[in-house]
Amino acid sequence: MTDLNSQLHDALQWRYATKQFDPFRTISAADWNSLQQALLLSHSSYGLQPWKFIVVTDPALKQQLPAVCWGQTQPRDCSHFVVFAARRTVDPQFVQQYLQRIAQVRSVPVTALEGLGTAINSKASRMGSEQLAWNSRQCYIPLGFLLQAAALLRIDACPMEGIQSDRLDPLLNLAGSDFTSVVACALGYRHAADRAALDAKVRFAAEDVIVSL
Amino acid sequence: MTDLNSQLHDALQWRYATKQFDPFRTISAADWNSLQQALLLSHSSYGLQPWKFIVVTDPALKQQLPAVCWGQTQPRDCSHFVVFAARRTVDPQFVQQYLQRIAQVRSVPVTALEGLGTAINSKASRMGSEQLAWNSRQCYIPLGFLLQAAALLRIDACPMEGIQSDRLDPLLNLAGSDFTSVVACALGYRHAADRAALDAKVRFAAEDVIVSL
Repeated sequence: MTDLNSQLHDALQWRYATKQFDPFRTISAADWNSLQQALLLSHSSYGLQPWKFIVVTDPALKQQLPAVCWGQTQPRDCSHFVVFAARRTVDPQFVQQYLQRIAQVRSVPVTALEGLGTAINSKASRMGSEQLAWNSRQCYIPLGFLLQAAALLRIDACPMEGIQSDRLDPLLNLAGSDFTSVVACALGYRHAADRAALDAKVRFAAEDVIVSL
Repeated sequence: MTDLNSQLHDALQWRYATKQFDPFRTISAADWNSLQQALLLSHSSYGLQPWKFIVVTDPALKQQLPAVCWGQTQPRDCSHFVVFAARRTVDPQFVQQYLQRIAQVRSVPVTALEGLGTAINSKASRMGSEQLAWNSRQCYIPLGFLLQAAALLRIDACPMEGIQSDRLDPLLNLAGSDFTSVVACALGYRHAADRAALDAKVRFAAEDVIVSL
């Protein structure tokens, strides 16, 4: 057991879905930079990154969030509220934009990437009306990256599916855009009064979840 | 910048979707234990853990995997091949099983959890035929946990949506069960000949992905 193995284990045991945040504590710039890197460097299918991450820190905007999150107060009281917005589609124009980015970063001609473009467009085409569902699933990968990174840095987090996208999107300037909110995560520091911090972590027994073949 | 911030950053920069694994290298028991913990301790909506993780290490079974993964060789050549199988439904019986687990772990009477049970059953009921889609999204959170944990431990990984569930499920004894495969991840060590390791990582510019409000 290396130090890193135990650090990871301790972090994952430490984390929990925070119910009540301390509204007076803010994530430092250095720590936020690490969390942002975890989002940006997340894996996605084909590397497409079919998302935007909306990061809300403005107090006036945060005040409006409980009303569009089924009354939950975490978005208001946390330090940084991250909304994962998925692209509604994977259209050829977006794929082309992605290929151009690869060409730029790797200094290759975009014509050398035609095979990849065809493969992605063909998969997207097969997905049909399921493109948003596909992109929505992808958003849960950076959510996982973010939660684990936060735990390692001892930053509290509350992942939230309980957002009212139809009412939240207009507040985030997403209405009518190519993106819609699918899941969110409040980040910051637990309130001393958050009793959820005391609850034992509940997981099924390993043998009920892991099947070894 | 603490040591952990830079360790995390280095790990995320280091990782890439491995195309070719070294078939002669195996993940140590201690490292595998850490990866398994990352799976088990992953977050999920309501903590429901609507999944099973099928871990394939048997050489004979691994030989059969490329044929049901569009010919991809990573499942065969890697050390541990993890299949994320989602529950097809969130039925009241499963919810009850979850409540009983909470009661057991936290030493509370299961009757004290009735409100939670009603909330989950009510959400599942609203989901209707979307329960599998809901559970499938959840599977991408432990995928994120697994990928980041592997990177920290310098274990290579290749997340794979390219699995043929209808043909893979029977091999994993999932056919006719409450579970179906939704995504997978090959884990082990890159082959020295894997040219993908040399490719520069491609991400959109931060300002194209992060929106600060």
